Amino acid sequence: MKLATLKDGSRDGKPVVVSKDLSRCAAMPEIAANLQAALDNWPDIVPKLTKIATRLVEDPSFGEKFDEKTAHSPLPRAYQWADGSAYVNHVELVRKARNAEMPPSFWTDPLMYQGGSDSFLAPHDPIVMADEAYGIDMEGEVAVIVGDVPMGAGLEQARAAIRLVMLANDVSLRGLIPAELGKGFGFFHAKPSSAFSPVAVTLDELGDAWDGAKLHLPLLVDYNGAPFGKANAGIDMTFDFAELIVHAAKTRPLGAGAIIGSGTVSNKLGDGPGKAISEGGAGFSCIAEVRMIETINGGAPATPFMKFGDTVRIEMKDKGGASIFGAIDQVVEQYHPDNSKDI
Amino acid sequence: MKLATLKDGSRDGKPVVVSKDLSRCAAMPEIAANLQAALDNWPDIVPKLTKIATRLVEDPSFGEKFDEKTAHSPLPRAYQWADGSAYVNHVELVRKARNAEMPPSFWTDPLMYQGGSDSFLAPHDPIVMADEAYGIDMEGEVAVIVGDVPMGAGLEQARAAIRLVMLANDVSLRGLIPAELGKGFGFFHAKPSSAFSPVAVTLDELGDAWDGAKLHLPLLVDYNGAPFGKANAGIDMTFDFAELIVHAAKTRPLGAGAIIGSGTVSNKLGDGPGKAISEGGAGFSCIAEVRMIETINGGAPATPFMKFGDTVRIEMKDKGGASIFGAIDQVVEQYHPDNSKDI
Repeated sequence: MKLATLKDGSRDGKPVVVSKDLSRCAAMPEIAANLQAALDNWPDIVPKLTKIATRLVEDPSFGEKFDEKTAHSPLPRAYQWADGSAYVNHVELVRKARNAEMPPSFWTDPLMYQGGSDSFLAPHDPIVMADEAYGIDMEGEVAVIVGDVPMGAGLEQARAAIRLVMLANDVSLRGLIPAELGKGFGFFHAKPSSAFSPVAVTLDELGDAWDGAKLHLPLLVDYNGAPFGKANAGIDMTFDFAELIVHAAKTRPLGAGAIIGSGTVSNKLGDGPGKAISEGGAGFSCIAEVRMIETINGGAPATPFMKFGDTVRIEMKDKGGASIFGAIDQVVEQYHPDNSKDI
Repeated sequence: MKLATLKDGSRDGKPVVVSKDLSRCAAMPEIAANLQAALDNWPDIVPKLTKIATRLVEDPSFGEKFDEKTAHSPLPRAYQWADGSAYVNHVELVRKARNAEMPPSFWTDPLMYQGGSDSFLAPHDPIVMADEAYGIDMEGEVAVIVGDVPMGAGLEQARAAIRLVMLANDVSLRGLIPAELGKGFGFFHAKPSSAFSPVAVTLDELGDAWDGAKLHLPLLVDYNGAPFGKANAGIDMTFDFAELIVHAAKTRPLGAGAIIGSGTVSNKLGDGPGKAISEGGAGFSCIAEVRMIETINGGAPATPFMKFGDTVRIEMKDKGGASIFGAIDQVVEQYHPDNSKDI
């Protein structure tokens, strides 16, 4: 089953079931007011949504046209967004890039930050930011939406709680990270609103690419229209989603609809760091990594962070080449705050 | 106007308008399904809720009995919980307690962490935790709920966005903080579910105790039935709520219903650290502070963190001695996870 939320002017949007080829969709007005409501009552809701999904398969004339450009993030706002750093390779490179040591425990104890979740960007919304000097960067990720997870849940419970899978662009402000982390309380200013793929899918839609806790497919990242990354999300993922969920629920329960992210997808090449696609490598899912490689190879970073007008596209295709989740496709635009506006 | 959310078995509870003396309440079935829905549409909702509030004043027989023990946190779950450390005195003492330096910029640049918001505790719910060794501590705070705040909002916009005020117990796990902060990504495990006061109030309910961005009343903290803290929330608040909101919204908008906390309320005594109530001081809103004072005075902390069975009560009274928000009243209990339970 594939699910999306269409923009309709409301805060939570209009939930729809989407056909496997992302061409059509059907509303669910009598089933759930929005995707969060469906997740709140998932076991009762799934059979009803499955009926709609089946009809979309059986009747090619059923439903309306689905245009992912009109989609919001599947959850336009959520009660929880906790993002891991499961590709420890990425963490190690980014730390090197800012001359920070990585403790060896990072290979055994998952790293996770608490994200803001009240104002997600739609997948085709611009990334508006006041200043290029913030060091605007994309982070291509895989994310799961879970059901209720009790505090202290084990790995089996965590695996069983995974309801939906989607992609994420965990926008990061590299220029603000050192000062924010230096204050000791986490990223805060350095992690503005994230965006998620137009479509979230149930595990059965992933076939054998889903091994129970990892997604074994390349994450395609295009930067300004050119291939930039194709790292396989199933490779070099030090902590799988079950381990990330167990970590998130160590001292508190997770509510239905909580989103857990993988962190930037990143593949090593043998024992060395990653390589650009043009050099036969898997490329990168964020700019910070390529800057690190450039520093290793040439002494200094050459690729700047994103400027106003730059675009990023994040997508994943099945073995037949069809888009699974639709694409996150965003342009960076300058934000002009209007402090005179009444609230 | 005073608002609360009664436990009714649903995730978001049943919203009610509460009488000023907290004795009666009236439901709002045709106005808003829950408090978040009211905040989503606040300008339209306020006149309708005001009518109910007025009737509660004019007709002493109107409404049903209000029992704060049946109340959930006003928002049982929220899309955003960002907690400042506005009483920099507290930060300085807690840092000293763990032998960490406090950068001087902390007096000019607000410190804020992103909290989890999908599983708040009800104000009279126990604090369940698997292990006393986590170093369980209360943090008595004031918190505001805001309307939509655009990214880059100014101080006037921030002030105008404050919808409701309440109290918070930002439960902290002191034993986990050094390792979590050492990893560099924030508190995560060290900040389990928070609890909020039974009642949230509009600014007019606070009279001249509300100066536009601070609440000038003592925060009463009882620990195991004895007075422990009575620090005035309007004193030594280095950053007021408008400044905290501006800080929270620097690189992203805040959605209606976002909760912004003050951090642990803490008063200095002259130029020195705080003093216990029994010694004529304002006491403490968390145990970490008293342990620091004990270390300064006697070389080592004497007061342990909370053990199973310990209780904390957090309340604020108006000048006439009446409870404004009802009380957060919690006991610490041992949690036994059941990893065999199906999800």
